[in-house]
Amino acid sequence: MEEIITLDYGSGGRKTARLIEKLLVPAFSNPALDSLGDGAIIEGAERLAFSTDSFVVDPIFFPGGDIGKLAVCGTVNDLAVCGAAPKYLSLALILEEGLPMRELETVVASIQKAAESAGVQIVTGDTKVVEKGRGDKLYINTAGIGFVKYPGLSPRSIRAGDAVIVSGTVGDHGTAVMLARSGMMEGELCSDCAALNGLCEAVLSTGAAVRVLRDPTRGGVATTLNEFIEGGELGIILDEEKIPVRPQVQAACDMLGLDPLYCANEGKLLAVVDASDAECVLAAMRETDAGRDAAVIGKVSAETPGRLVLQTAFGGRRILQKLTGAQLPRIC
Amino acid sequence: MEEIITLDYGSGGRKTARLIEKLLVPAFSNPALDSLGDGAIIEGAERLAFSTDSFVVDPIFFPGGDIGKLAVCGTVNDLAVCGAAPKYLSLALILEEGLPMRELETVVASIQKAAESAGVQIVTGDTKVVEKGRGDKLYINTAGIGFVKYPGLSPRSIRAGDAVIVSGTVGDHGTAVMLARSGMMEGELCSDCAALNGLCEAVLSTGAAVRVLRDPTRGGVATTLNEFIEGGELGIILDEEKIPVRPQVQAACDMLGLDPLYCANEGKLLAVVDASDAECVLAAMRETDAGRDAAVIGKVSAETPGRLVLQTAFGGRRILQKLTGAQLPRIC
Repeated sequence: MEEIITLDYGSGGRKTARLIEKLLVPAFSNPALDSLGDGAIIEGAERLAFSTDSFVVDPIFFPGGDIGKLAVCGTVNDLAVCGAAPKYLSLALILEEGLPMRELETVVASIQKAAESAGVQIVTGDTKVVEKGRGDKLYINTAGIGFVKYPGLSPRSIRAGDAVIVSGTVGDHGTAVMLARSGMMEGELCSDCAALNGLCEAVLSTGAAVRVLRDPTRGGVATTLNEFIEGGELGIILDEEKIPVRPQVQAACDMLGLDPLYCANEGKLLAVVDASDAECVLAAMRETDAGRDAAVIGKVSAETPGRLVLQTAFGGRRILQKLTGAQLPRIC
Repeated sequence: MEEIITLDYGSGGRKTARLIEKLLVPAFSNPALDSLGDGAIIEGAERLAFSTDSFVVDPIFFPGGDIGKLAVCGTVNDLAVCGAAPKYLSLALILEEGLPMRELETVVASIQKAAESAGVQIVTGDTKVVEKGRGDKLYINTAGIGFVKYPGLSPRSIRAGDAVIVSGTVGDHGTAVMLARSGMMEGELCSDCAALNGLCEAVLSTGAAVRVLRDPTRGGVATTLNEFIEGGELGIILDEEKIPVRPQVQAACDMLGLDPLYCANEGKLLAVVDASDAECVLAAMRETDAGRDAAVIGKVSAETPGRLVLQTAFGGRRILQKLTGAQLPRIC
């Protein structure tokens, strides 16, 4: 019979211990975790970045990744865009009773691989189990600690004339998950789920005047760019023709009634940089796997204070507001 | 009409922003949180302790506390028993669609109060919403960072003859939640939910030879003490008559078929200390609110290697194993 998660695994007793010892500790082996206390002890002597995210993506497996890879990359990216080198993650699982053990093992293997690839260690964790119907297979929270290497990144430092750069095609994650959810998993459409710490380092180590970095996840590029300018005296003008969108993403969006600019990305970087450094940043991005399709997609302008404006391919202009309502629930 | 949580609040768009700005940021105001990036930047130059816990307690309100107070105290305590001074918490909410906003506000107020009282700051956070029937009102994850003040605490350092001390009555949280769940909320039975960083500091600042500290949550005192000795050459002998249990907890346990030694505590400390320092540690505990009923309840012994043995009030001996299965699901 297939082994499944029962409430016993969340009791804090023997089965919880077995899950930790047989599945989790071997997967994330490191000195901090070996002591298995309630917390991890970390050596550090620098400015810290600290971030957390819960992941409730539905379905938990999708083309290009799964909830485990997402949970590692998501928190790694939140730290990396702070100008920090991500180092340590916590991992907290909320399992629904009845989850096949095999699926949990697959997700854990995926977490392990993603953590190794991003150069971070899982140093502490927690496991809870809820009754069938009180969760949805598996929710994951990761929190992360990084050491700040490039301080001072902030939307407050953007200036009129700055270039707005995206590291690649937009909307891949959101559309891939929506298609997977609707059962249409075939096709070439994959989530872009990836760790961006290497890309951020590549950009920041150029010494370019980088104002702010951000990974446009829930709410997409349009929502993140709105956050940069809201309430301020500057706006952003986007050039629709320059925004890289895969044809299959555009087709899926057309079919599903979505806009790629509002679709979640999980492996893309938005950078606002001094216009004179735009070419240098683009070149640095394009040398990395994650940044091959990088493009300048717009500029900061005093013309449209507090507004994100899309210059359309047909020569018109349209204001892009922040996402209102749940375009894509449980996308990450 | 009563305001409730809808999926929109988890979209990463306007409603998410409103929830963060109107409810969460005002509640936990601090400089690190003010920047509202994806992570918090923290100044630090010491050894770090890092811990995480998800809270899925059912019901979310119970006598003596709620899921919010629990989420703060639980992570504060995990750091404190590492010998660390807890400083920063992350807060990640998984809300079920339909949760009354008023209940969320009550929980947030409770988080705020508990954080202030424990001297910690909420510096980063995340909010997700899942569909009705995919959660249970509200799950909370907190991760915490502390700076290690008293290094070297470890079950590996216990020695034969050491005294085992508990800071007060056992089983209060587990029985209070079980009674609340069964609808029998009346009576004097309250959760002991409390932050233990003050108590840990009181104990450790005596300079006593403290081997290990732990808060016996899920699985209770019997499971935590088993973790100290499992696989080793030492055992622990508990003196049943010396273990403080409230009469109403004992009565509730008798009624529910539970054993207070396996019931979760959320404001109790177990300490293993050199026997010659036991009186000094007891005195330090008793000077604090959380430690008024502290008692020496047993000793470490080479007589029963790897075993936790209960010397009963009737002169017999009984082996106490780790909790097997889910005696009390969703107790924290």
